[in-house]
Amino acid sequence: MTVSEAMSHPAVSVSTGTPLRQVAREMAEYGVGSVLVTEGGTLRGIVTDRDLALGALAGGLDANDAVDSVMTSPVVTVSVTDDIHTAYRTFRGSGFRRLPVLDGHRVVGVLTVDDMLIDVFQRLADLLGPVAWSVLEESPGPPSAETR
Amino acid sequence: MTVSEAMSHPAVSVSTGTPLRQVAREMAEYGVGSVLVTEGGTLRGIVTDRDLALGALAGGLDANDAVDSVMTSPVVTVSVTDDIHTAYRTFRGSGFRRLPVLDGHRVVGVLTVDDMLIDVFQRLADLLGPVAWSVLEESPGPPSAETR
Amino acid sequence: MTVSEAMSHPAVSVSTGTPLRQVAREMAEYGVGSVLVTEGGTLRGIVTDRDLALGALAGGLDANDAVDSVMTSPVVTVSVTDDIHTAYRTFRGSGFRRLPVLDGHRVVGVLTVDDMLIDVFQRLADLLGPVAWSVLEESPGPPSAETR
Amino acid sequence: MTVSEAMSHPAVSVSTGTPLRQVAREMAEYGVGSVLVTEGGTLRGIVTDRDLALGALAGGLDANDAVDSVMTSPVVTVSVTDDIHTAYRTFRGSGFRRLPVLDGHRVVGVLTVDDMLIDVFQRLADLLGPVAWSVLEESPGPPSAETR
Repeated sequence: MTVSEAMSHPAVSVSTGTPLRQVAREMAEYGVGSVLVTEGGTLRGIVTDRDLALGALAGGLDANDAVDSVMTSPVVTVSVTDDIHTAYRTFRGSGFRRLPVLDGHRVVGVLTVDDMLIDVFQRLADLLGPVAWSVLEESPGPPSAETR
Repeated sequence: MTVSEAMSHPAVSVSTGTPLRQVAREMAEYGVGSVLVTEGGTLRGIVTDRDLALGALAGGLDANDAVDSVMTSPVVTVSVTDDIHTAYRTFRGSGFRRLPVLDGHRVVGVLTVDDMLIDVFQRLADLLGPVAWSVLEESPGPPSAETR
Repeated sequence: MTVSEAMSHPAVSVSTGTPLRQVAREMAEYGVGSVLVTEGGTLRGIVTDRDLALGALAGGLDANDAVDSVMTSPVVTVSVTDDIHTAYRTFRGSGFRRLPVLDGHRVVGVLTVDDMLIDVFQRLADLLGPVAWSVLEESPGPPSAETR
Repeated sequence: MTVSEAMSHPAVSVSTGTPLRQVAREMAEYGVGSVLVTEGGTLRGIVTDRDLALGALAGGLDANDAVDSVMTSPVVTVSVTDDIHTAYRTFRGSGFRRLPVLDGHRVVGVLTVDDMLIDVFQRLADLLGPVAWSVLEESPGPPSAETR
């Protein structure tokens, strides 16, 4: 099983130099918690909603300042063709919760801890068999918000 | 088992009217992803790092604006004496990832999805027995960041 | 949440003195992996399919010998009113995979590691929200056999 | 990650024609719940402790009868070089709890549901990071028995 089968988040990218205001708007529009920062198609960094909040507000930046000032760089990544176990090890080794997924040099998505928890859940379901389904008759409720 | 045994996050609170800049600084200082908003000791709302990022930057607010404008209110809560299963149902029913924990009317902590995942992990460990520990000989790596 | 909500296996009981052949027939008829041994309504022991296989065949017993010779006694039990966390701790502390459930002195069921794994699965589903269901669209396949 | 990295149970084998008594003794000596049945090095069947108990005692067989009468045949297997996800699918599709592992035609081990649960546990630990270890300070108790 490869990374491409587990990732469920699109790669939302902005160019280096993009104002923080625009980065926040992309996060809101696409419902994502991180945005990748590229330069001429090459990945330069990653910025999360928390980076924006703390960098811009606590750090005294302005909404017109460039994303470069708060992004994390260089970025730990995984390849779209990596075995999913490589991704587990990378999450474990890095402590990050979101990893950009590369196809060669091109960014094709973001792999999150939530994607991996779904993989854990699926494995457990495989082992428990049909009884697992029978106990889940109750409606699961509203979608889980990404960040609260 | 009660909520008090599972919660691991302190209750970081600010008063209504606190500027967004100050809220962001509290999040940075205490390493938390949400801050509770109180008025005269009574819980009025909750604000996450994402609320700050999107509200202030995408929404055009200023770092001096009051937290009231971006907080979620009213707030879904759990009681410190609730059975942990009540908390599971509340997470499921609400879709939120952080729930303030009340002792009467006083806020005593925040219960997060990560706290609950640790509870799931502990249960699985109880069932697997000593073999679970023997496979975990490898160093677990750096701490998991709260939001990336 | 109490033990009574998690247990899914009936209490199949035989009297002390019951021949091993009859015990095996009860296991086959009710599709269970263990049978409780009682004397005048009081729990005296528990016997598993493995106890039968090893005791009778490897140990040189006869199918007409009494169950008393292979049962485990005394038995670690849980109460039907115990919190489910007491059961987790009992599984962890004892290393057993099946625990008779008592209502006072009366045996009302058997709690198994599989019951507890279903509880773990349900908790994880509560935390993952609706996305958990969406990934389980595939048919789960045939029932999991108890012992192979 | 391949099947070879997850399997922890040795392949205990007997020849077709082996008496049930001897099969039970092998299970006791090696602490396993299933024994493979081979003929000239080729896998012919698998027999569990439950098959022995129910077949020999409930079915009226004698301890001197041959294992062939109670074994399951043909056997669902996995290859030692299969990706672990193939094994998950095979457990799910078959409903069995133990799968012989083949290297070509040679049997090299047995993969159990417990091996797979350990894999699930390890994945969850990878995602939770160091906090997972910190909550497991308590001694894990005695080894989990294979079948009770």
